[in-house]
Amino acid sequence: MLIVMNPKATAQQVDEVVKFIEHKGFQTHISRGDVHTVIGAVGDKTIDMRDVEIMDGVDNIIKISTSYKLASRTFKPDDTVVDVKGVKFGGGYCGMIAGPCTIESYEQMDETAKVLAQTGVRVLRGGAFKPRTSPYSFQGLGEEGLKIIREVADKYNMVVASEVMEISQIDLFVKYADILQVGARNMQNFNLLRELSYVKKPIILKRGLSSTIDEWLMSAEYLLSDGNGDVILCERGIRTFERATRNTLDISAIPVVQKLSHLPIIVDPSHGTGLRDKVLPMSRAAAAAGADGIMVEVHHSPSNALCDGPQSLYPQDYDKLFNDIKVMLPLVGKQIN
Amino acid sequence: MLIVMNPKATAQQVDEVVKFIEHKGFQTHISRGDVHTVIGAVGDKTIDMRDVEIMDGVDNIIKISTSYKLASRTFKPDDTVVDVKGVKFGGGYCGMIAGPCTIESYEQMDETAKVLAQTGVRVLRGGAFKPRTSPYSFQGLGEEGLKIIREVADKYNMVVASEVMEISQIDLFVKYADILQVGARNMQNFNLLRELSYVKKPIILKRGLSSTIDEWLMSAEYLLSDGNGDVILCERGIRTFERATRNTLDISAIPVVQKLSHLPIIVDPSHGTGLRDKVLPMSRAAAAAGADGIMVEVHHSPSNALCDGPQSLYPQDYDKLFNDIKVMLPLVGKQIN
Amino acid sequence: MLIVMNPKATAQQVDEVVKFIEHKGFQTHISRGDVHTVIGAVGDKTIDMRDVEIMDGVDNIIKISTSYKLASRTFKPDDTVVDVKGVKFGGGYCGMIAGPCTIESYEQMDETAKVLAQTGVRVLRGGAFKPRTSPYSFQGLGEEGLKIIREVADKYNMVVASEVMEISQIDLFVKYADILQVGARNMQNFNLLRELSYVKKPIILKRGLSSTIDEWLMSAEYLLSDGNGDVILCERGIRTFERATRNTLDISAIPVVQKLSHLPIIVDPSHGTGLRDKVLPMSRAAAAAGADGIMVEVHHSPSNALCDGPQSLYPQDYDKLFNDIKVMLPLVGKQIN
Amino acid sequence: MLIVMNPKATAQQVDEVVKFIEHKGFQTHISRGDVHTVIGAVGDKTIDMRDVEIMDGVDNIIKISTSYKLASRTFKPDDTVVDVKGVKFGGGYCGMIAGPCTIESYEQMDETAKVLAQTGVRVLRGGAFKPRTSPYSFQGLGEEGLKIIREVADKYNMVVASEVMEISQIDLFVKYADILQVGARNMQNFNLLRELSYVKKPIILKRGLSSTIDEWLMSAEYLLSDGNGDVILCERGIRTFERATRNTLDISAIPVVQKLSHLPIIVDPSHGTGLRDKVLPMSRAAAAAGADGIMVEVHHSPSNALCDGPQSLYPQDYDKLFNDIKVMLPLVGKQIN
Repeated sequence: MLIVMNPKATAQQVDEVVKFIEHKGFQTHISRGDVHTVIGAVGDKTIDMRDVEIMDGVDNIIKISTSYKLASRTFKPDDTVVDVKGVKFGGGYCGMIAGPCTIESYEQMDETAKVLAQTGVRVLRGGAFKPRTSPYSFQGLGEEGLKIIREVADKYNMVVASEVMEISQIDLFVKYADILQVGARNMQNFNLLRELSYVKKPIILKRGLSSTIDEWLMSAEYLLSDGNGDVILCERGIRTFERATRNTLDISAIPVVQKLSHLPIIVDPSHGTGLRDKVLPMSRAAAAAGADGIMVEVHHSPSNALCDGPQSLYPQDYDKLFNDIKVMLPLVGKQIN
Repeated sequence: MLIVMNPKATAQQVDEVVKFIEHKGFQTHISRGDVHTVIGAVGDKTIDMRDVEIMDGVDNIIKISTSYKLASRTFKPDDTVVDVKGVKFGGGYCGMIAGPCTIESYEQMDETAKVLAQTGVRVLRGGAFKPRTSPYSFQGLGEEGLKIIREVADKYNMVVASEVMEISQIDLFVKYADILQVGARNMQNFNLLRELSYVKKPIILKRGLSSTIDEWLMSAEYLLSDGNGDVILCERGIRTFERATRNTLDISAIPVVQKLSHLPIIVDPSHGTGLRDKVLPMSRAAAAAGADGIMVEVHHSPSNALCDGPQSLYPQDYDKLFNDIKVMLPLVGKQIN
Repeated sequence: MLIVMNPKATAQQVDEVVKFIEHKGFQTHISRGDVHTVIGAVGDKTIDMRDVEIMDGVDNIIKISTSYKLASRTFKPDDTVVDVKGVKFGGGYCGMIAGPCTIESYEQMDETAKVLAQTGVRVLRGGAFKPRTSPYSFQGLGEEGLKIIREVADKYNMVVASEVMEISQIDLFVKYADILQVGARNMQNFNLLRELSYVKKPIILKRGLSSTIDEWLMSAEYLLSDGNGDVILCERGIRTFERATRNTLDISAIPVVQKLSHLPIIVDPSHGTGLRDKVLPMSRAAAAAGADGIMVEVHHSPSNALCDGPQSLYPQDYDKLFNDIKVMLPLVGKQIN
Repeated sequence: MLIVMNPKATAQQVDEVVKFIEHKGFQTHISRGDVHTVIGAVGDKTIDMRDVEIMDGVDNIIKISTSYKLASRTFKPDDTVVDVKGVKFGGGYCGMIAGPCTIESYEQMDETAKVLAQTGVRVLRGGAFKPRTSPYSFQGLGEEGLKIIREVADKYNMVVASEVMEISQIDLFVKYADILQVGARNMQNFNLLRELSYVKKPIILKRGLSSTIDEWLMSAEYLLSDGNGDVILCERGIRTFERATRNTLDISAIPVVQKLSHLPIIVDPSHGTGLRDKVLPMSRAAAAAGADGIMVEVHHSPSNALCDGPQSLYPQDYDKLFNDIKVMLPLVGKQIN
């Protein structure tokens, strides 16, 4: 941490700051420039920087270290490759995840999975619990849904990804799913993250709607803090002033995260755009930018879907998407599986 | 719902839309303008509007009804006045809430509450569980903290407001607190909201960092849906591109919410700005805009606070704030208590 | 325009609205639903919708027609292909534009253009006037710069694109440049746009930093209104809360604009990200999403550039970018030139 | 400027950075902490910080000095009080500006000014040139309008404030107006700002729709750079994701600017909210937060206004606003005139 003093700060004000910082357990060293005096503070204590920011004579406080450590590329320079029963995310691999928003019935999952498996997808997604913005909407099949997706995935030699909503559901998901997903609204549900850090299964952590990349990596740090290294980040659109799309899919988060962190980053263009006809171009864009995976909503009959039909692809559209991406991956040094 | 067809839409495309809408359980009526044909759809079913938006020949879909009903002023034209043991929020009243970010010890709460009670504050706030953005920070005293705040509040004839973080904590909060608070990060934790709708205590619902007012009122709808009418909305800053403040406190949310809804809206300038010297001017601004309450962080010794010290007021600063607001309230037709 | 009345609106309030609307020169027709009465207003007059929004009994006003007409795909269903001396943007073509931020000297332009021409680039860009955020920075070579870029472009059989900053400079740019560019800060400089609508040269219109796509197309409408149909839209990043990149490049604007408008849309990943190492992945992403052109800053010696060096590519990096894109274009049905 | 090196940066990488910085004309000094080496750079040269940011081994660059100097409170600790023929903005004064969006006719201005003058307003505003988002709207009376507002203002002993749109209009405005206004869309029109810096009349500089406070003060710096010290900043709403208001009026900008700068800051709640019924509460909020002035749109017959009628107050509403503010000002140590 560096404390930049005001050009007109008095010697006494500098002293006060130094005293305060040292009292908090830091070592200090002072650099006097022509204009500003800068106080460096070194130590492993935590401090709320605003405590210093409001002291007299202080212009500015600068955080030097990132808040996350285990998630940073400085800590681990090599790409983390998450391997789920042979399906790989990160490094030279781009993992493909597809399936409906919500598990509705065995028939629905079976029809969808059959087509996806033929295309080459190895990860089947589907939601079992669906808390919706309106209290008057369909809320999901619960455990019954998890049984269905497990059975169907096994039939087609696929692995299961599904979203866990709260601590009380964790055991259920550990039992039925191979990959647990944390939704955007739970990205800073730190109680849930802490419990999930004890789980020995890969976790997809979606970016919050208004979360900076820095905060996102801090949430990943929670998941990593108990030793589970299999965290996959998922960009799914941020909230901006633009109204033509539901959210603005931040494709540049891919190269940014890949520079700051060793964790794989995948992209969800279905939620990111909210409209079916934008999913194909944005999936291609994500792959071209170097994404470590693509997660797409596919439904065998979108107009009858109980949830998110309008952003779900028809299986045949997905087929084109899958093949386009397969052609593009060599350009970015990646492959599927 | 109104479906605006493209000027070049064919008669068949119009038919397809009508058929689809009616199949979903709506009644339709068609208006043919010089340029656009508009299809009105009436019914009490829910539909994902994007399902229609992507049909051929459709230009635009327009939602006419708000998603929330119980929270709307159309449903209940008169102001809701929430009365907590005589402390009132809404209508002609502006409720004052103050206290530290976190309950740290009996002494801390006692010293703070004593001064606040003398000033005239009747609602004491304090956090018992503190999940933090960093896994390496102080996490709160838990039930021990709730006991402390209860005891201190009783001593000074105050009521207790405290934030509940997850479903498993609800019973504890019902036992010790008079007002339960839902934090910004939980504004769309619909599982939690549903459980809280069964609780017969007033609830403060903070606005999410990137939530529209419409979504906020929809979350209030969840709380109201089981009959608990005592919901207080709390504006605490939204995320924007501006970096000089932690968030941008949306003061205009006060008159906007008061037009759309009958629920009281209070303001939290401590979290909204993140810096002590901005709390006084922004509290005055909130009161001048007609806020139904002001919630402020106060600590008897901010530089020793375990949490949010830099945005906490000294008790003597709070005294000035309280008195400034008391002078201003008659201008907006309000009073304290 | 549709006026949705409040469920509790009185017959007299409906009458007042109808009278007002007809007084403004519109024809009206009324639909009475179970809940809402909706008044449709048809006519070619303009009206500030808020005038009606604040009338008693009115819930909501809905604009049906887009504000832009000439720029819309409804008006012109086929892609506009802008052809600048054989270089094409739009339809089956992706135009490549490259060059330094600022024209610094003949040597600089010559060295850069030579390499670019060899790679296959046919459009040379470079700024002659450089108003900077700080009044203390380099401000551009002016007409001298335009002479240089013209001479160099002719030598390598390239065409010239350069940014015009204000009305008084238009003649100069018509004389020396083949494509005139309007910068993001001038996107709503309507005086400038109107003057440019009389110019018979293609114009690149950059998106404003906080402009919606709707506003952007409205600005294009200004340019089109006097008959000049050669307008190229350029996405260059929007302002969001994210701080890891200078702006958030809105790649989804590509498919959105291509649905709403017939005009070509190109992407500028140099300004969109602000950092060299993000330019390659984001250029590929833009091409994969179907961009009608890519504009990139290239400098033969970025560390000596007078402007935007850190976001400028080295010529050899650009070579890789150009070739990657050439490989990808067939996937989206496009080619260069 | 401070350059924070990566914990794993080599000695040679540190050397390269030092060499580069010194080559650019800076003096350097190195602090070696336990984790990071930090290089301080001192000098009066300008440099694009990203040039260093992309060097090997560099983690982060930190700007210490603000980009603006003349606008900062460090440069001038005392409040600037702008005095326009006895009407004062800043320090202990809150200046009141009112009038219609656009000058439409002598009668309109006369009727409006008469009422405003009686209320106590001394500054009359009105637009003469009105470039609109749509090319099909009313564009203003031009010089004719300026003559009208001048004549009417003189009749009622008021001063004139009006917006200048481009360089070619400056002479006209110097002739007729007492205060020149720069609109939000021109906040970064640096050519215009530079020319205005030579004008010896007070200038109101509106904040751009997506401009940070830092950028705003940088634009003020342009205006101050040739000696004209009479700059008044005007907050008028920023663009956010919230859709219930046209923009989000950033009331917290008042205390933030007053800490960073000595310049007066006024607020325009008419553009900031876009709706008449929000203007009164937001004006009060601005005054309560310590604004140095309030600018409001008033029209004698809003429903017939050619521009912005829905956000214009009726004269009688304005009367209440004026009086409310007069009552509140003593609380913030201010008065009118």
